Amino acid sequence: MTNIISTQINPSLTKLTPYEPGKPIEELAREYGFSPNEIIKLASNENPLGPSPFAVEAIAKNLHKIHLYPDGNGYALKKALAASLDIDTENIVLGNGSNEIIELLFHLFASSPTEEVLFSKYAFAVYKLMAELFGASFKEVDDRSFSHDLQSILHSIGPKTKLIFIANPNNPTGTRIPNEQLYEFLDAVPERVVVAIDEAYIDFVPDPPQTLSFIKKRENIVILRTFSKMHGLAGLRIGYGIAPKSIANYLQRARQPFNTNFLAQVAATASLEDKQHILQTLKITEEGKKRLEDGFNRLGLRFIPSSANFILVHVGDGDYVFKSFLKKGIIIRPMKSYGLAEWVRITVGTPEQLSKLLEAFPSILLPLRTLDKK
Amino acid sequence: MTNIISTQINPSLTKLTPYEPGKPIEELAREYGFSPNEIIKLASNENPLGPSPFAVEAIAKNLHKIHLYPDGNGYALKKALAASLDIDTENIVLGNGSNEIIELLFHLFASSPTEEVLFSKYAFAVYKLMAELFGASFKEVDDRSFSHDLQSILHSIGPKTKLIFIANPNNPTGTRIPNEQLYEFLDAVPERVVVAIDEAYIDFVPDPPQTLSFIKKRENIVILRTFSKMHGLAGLRIGYGIAPKSIANYLQRARQPFNTNFLAQVAATASLEDKQHILQTLKITEEGKKRLEDGFNRLGLRFIPSSANFILVHVGDGDYVFKSFLKKGIIIRPMKSYGLAEWVRITVGTPEQLSKLLEAFPSILLPLRTLDKK
Repeated sequence: MTNIISTQINPSLTKLTPYEPGKPIEELAREYGFSPNEIIKLASNENPLGPSPFAVEAIAKNLHKIHLYPDGNGYALKKALAASLDIDTENIVLGNGSNEIIELLFHLFASSPTEEVLFSKYAFAVYKLMAELFGASFKEVDDRSFSHDLQSILHSIGPKTKLIFIANPNNPTGTRIPNEQLYEFLDAVPERVVVAIDEAYIDFVPDPPQTLSFIKKRENIVILRTFSKMHGLAGLRIGYGIAPKSIANYLQRARQPFNTNFLAQVAATASLEDKQHILQTLKITEEGKKRLEDGFNRLGLRFIPSSANFILVHVGDGDYVFKSFLKKGIIIRPMKSYGLAEWVRITVGTPEQLSKLLEAFPSILLPLRTLDKK
Repeated sequence: MTNIISTQINPSLTKLTPYEPGKPIEELAREYGFSPNEIIKLASNENPLGPSPFAVEAIAKNLHKIHLYPDGNGYALKKALAASLDIDTENIVLGNGSNEIIELLFHLFASSPTEEVLFSKYAFAVYKLMAELFGASFKEVDDRSFSHDLQSILHSIGPKTKLIFIANPNNPTGTRIPNEQLYEFLDAVPERVVVAIDEAYIDFVPDPPQTLSFIKKRENIVILRTFSKMHGLAGLRIGYGIAPKSIANYLQRARQPFNTNFLAQVAATASLEDKQHILQTLKITEEGKKRLEDGFNRLGLRFIPSSANFILVHVGDGDYVFKSFLKKGIIIRPMKSYGLAEWVRITVGTPEQLSKLLEAFPSILLPLRTLDKK
């Protein structure tokens, strides 16, 4: 539509490629006539065990207070996080999901074309989305075998570079950076360039890197964490940034006064206490990942060994396989929007969910393979 | 703290004046040793009746699904809103509170010093906060007797003007614009300038202006609404913008993929159905407002007649009165950060809350008045 207003809109927005989220269960139910209960969603790396019972209980106890504005400072949650991470509350910035911390970093460091952001070619889509929204310059650095090429990233740093995003483990590839390589990289980045280490999936790593120690010794490191994955609170939108106090202070200024909601704060605080839920989630994830790997091997499908709760697998035609699974009531994630049209990304679900997925796979692949042979 | 990173930070942020929220109940409880239950909060214009029971029930029913990402498109809530407002879902943009819609408007229209935003001197603080965050130019237009001076606003429009915020009823003054004056104003604003009409408190107005009709006939009007006030869902952060489809489409692009949380969507959808809750809230607000007015008259305090669920009242020394009430476990809102140091803003609470407030008032005013006479 052309009208006077369209000519007034920030040109960055006209160029922006909107994010393609995992298909919601209710949407598939409407479109294909399924009951929502029979649908299996393995598209958004959610926790198949659901939220911690501690979180559910905490919400139920606080429902009579939802008419009150949340504590904008998130006192209780930040105090619990500080104690559990052995840092100060002043190092923590809460966000409406860790996505919001990504956005705040652009407000601080990259809101014009003279400021450049670096990230890997196959990295979380929101880095690029935000760079486009803010009209910042950006470079997508080529990955070496689906994993961050830290040397290339270092070589790509130029005078305009302000901010680097490193996801570890990475989404959508699932790969992780060996700890020593990460430490060397962080030491090699010039002090004037901020490195945001996106640790959305770090809870699935048995020997995580000691990135928190860098917050104490360097001024240019920010860590992003979320309650959406391991903690099973994706629906509530709660994540956080850990940063040196100088940066954290400005991140606080850039956020909305009430950016995180009350029930998310309450649920996140409670779920930090539930060690049992974390152990169960780790167990089901490790076992499920093994089953998926075995299954893909049997099917002759190439996949990327994953350090997270999902696997990127090569199916030849991702969109076709995605749509074929939809017809069976199973939502997986096509990867075309990530430039990986031949791949799909599959979340590690419950044993029952994985059985149904693996059972459906051969018949879905059959037409593709018949085509190949022609 | 001076370090290399501070020199890298967007200078807009160093100038920004952070928002001063209403003091949270838990914070006062910690600081003064009160039990949270005995504290009365009349600082943030929340619904004293709490949320609708429909909303609470809807949340309770959906707690087992909080591990799933919300529907980023908010299908069910937008469908319910579209039906209730007789507009299309494509006219609606959901926000993490209506504050987020304000922020999105800056992404679209005012993200550099060459773009100017207009608002009244005594207007909602977040307009200025966002202008500072985005480094946009802004003009605070002088109010005529605490109410929007629409003629001055019209005269202030210049070649750089991209966006005007009009809150109706206005916060923190409580004043409303007569409908005919608003219509004339909207017709007089040049088509290239967007007018955002912030209707956070419109549900308290018995004869609201027909602003929705302007969405259908003009391309430059955006309406902001919230579930935080009348609907009693401030803790959940849910609001929305209503806009012509051309603008709404770009607002969608500027938002995060999962900007509104699942429980907020569910609660808002349910609370739209609860007409009884709205009627009860209107009744308690009207009766409470009358009581506050009578009380202020008896105390000889000047106040601004309000069309919303709060009253701005002249107490001489707002900070002193605010602090004195804190000691009694009552939180009201000092107005110094709004440039109204002699005033406080008081939310219309329950009859019991207002009784305690009005009982405490004379002894709090006494020292101020003794001082006056010296």
